[in-house]
Amino acid sequence: MSFAASVITLFPELFPGPLGASVLGRGLGEGLWSLSTTQLRDFAVDRHRSVDDSPSGGGAGMVLKPDILAKAIDATAPQGDPRPRILMSPRGKPLTQARARELALGPGAVIVCGRFEGIDQRVIDRRGLEEISIGDYVLAGGEVAAMVLLETIVRLIPGVLGKAESHADESFENGLLEYPQYTRPQNFEGVDIPAMLTSGDHGKIAKWRHEQSLALTKARRPDLLTTKSS
Amino acid sequence: MSFAASVITLFPELFPGPLGASVLGRGLGEGLWSLSTTQLRDFAVDRHRSVDDSPSGGGAGMVLKPDILAKAIDATAPQGDPRPRILMSPRGKPLTQARARELALGPGAVIVCGRFEGIDQRVIDRRGLEEISIGDYVLAGGEVAAMVLLETIVRLIPGVLGKAESHADESFENGLLEYPQYTRPQNFEGVDIPAMLTSGDHGKIAKWRHEQSLALTKARRPDLLTTKSS
Repeated sequence: MSFAASVITLFPELFPGPLGASVLGRGLGEGLWSLSTTQLRDFAVDRHRSVDDSPSGGGAGMVLKPDILAKAIDATAPQGDPRPRILMSPRGKPLTQARARELALGPGAVIVCGRFEGIDQRVIDRRGLEEISIGDYVLAGGEVAAMVLLETIVRLIPGVLGKAESHADESFENGLLEYPQYTRPQNFEGVDIPAMLTSGDHGKIAKWRHEQSLALTKARRPDLLTTKSS
Repeated sequence: MSFAASVITLFPELFPGPLGASVLGRGLGEGLWSLSTTQLRDFAVDRHRSVDDSPSGGGAGMVLKPDILAKAIDATAPQGDPRPRILMSPRGKPLTQARARELALGPGAVIVCGRFEGIDQRVIDRRGLEEISIGDYVLAGGEVAAMVLLETIVRLIPGVLGKAESHADESFENGLLEYPQYTRPQNFEGVDIPAMLTSGDHGKIAKWRHEQSLALTKARRPDLLTTKSS
């Protein structure tokens, strides 16, 4: 069975969007993964099709109603659906390459996209939503965050990336940022490709690249090295 | 002058995509910000319209050619264009709400979306590209990352969010994760809204919410508290 993604959103028309392009889109077309959407508003019960209400205790913005979202989740992933239920949220656990790899090996994911000021805490608790954050910044809604999560997962599904596209030397795959890359022309605006790379000595090139990765990581992201050693 | 975004990409058809929806799309329609795209492939010179070549020194994948990308950048942002030139890259500085706020106050941004194994380091250096990462994971390309960056920036542009949508209490705006939210119905699957929130005592509610934020941040993201105090 291939990876099945279901997205609960007020903007189903945004999907697949970027997920339908390039290698991810090809994988979708070939059935290596699948994508369905649920329009949250279809589960509204009043004649204005409201999905939100003002926050208890006051404050700006609107809060997504727990009863409406619970019905949308239950319709998308009935009891027994083995897929993790994920809420894209800045309050969540930061997305890592490791979590993406775990998810890529699983049956899929049911992803809730928030909008407005937030989501009623009770539906998060009662439906066991796993909150995942894509970074320490605030978006207008969860849709683009869901695309980030799915793009990160789907490209790890076997067969999605062709032979030409590799995982081995990427940033984070070995705990370091990737070394600098160069390609033709040999001279660009007076700057040559580092002579090491055209030396033909593959042992030395591998060593040089590792040193470059390490130096770049030390300079830009010392936190990644601290995490590794602790 | 409003915020002007220019995106250099192999997939211009993906834009505005999610950036055209909801409040961001309304702001785009009202001229509060603008968006243009540059098709990188238009700057290729051979008859196959190649934009990439194999990495110097060997290795999997393909590298974006410096000469082609330099021409695309120069055509999109000629000398004197005051906008920062940004490359979406996992090697970059992590995006923060603070950097998004700075960018939102500026004239706009020229954003390069990578694809393939990487981009020739010489064009990054020679064109002074600021590398920004949206998180510690790997995407198939920079397009969705550019959408994340722009969504984070654009919602901070005055007038884009309506009065109903506030910034004040959001995650990261005060260095803490946001407190839990609740709304009607009063009882959801046997669980009531916390009595504190329906007490009407706004001082106590504010204190409760701050305590909840602090407890949640301590439990989930102690790193945010460490950063604050150091």
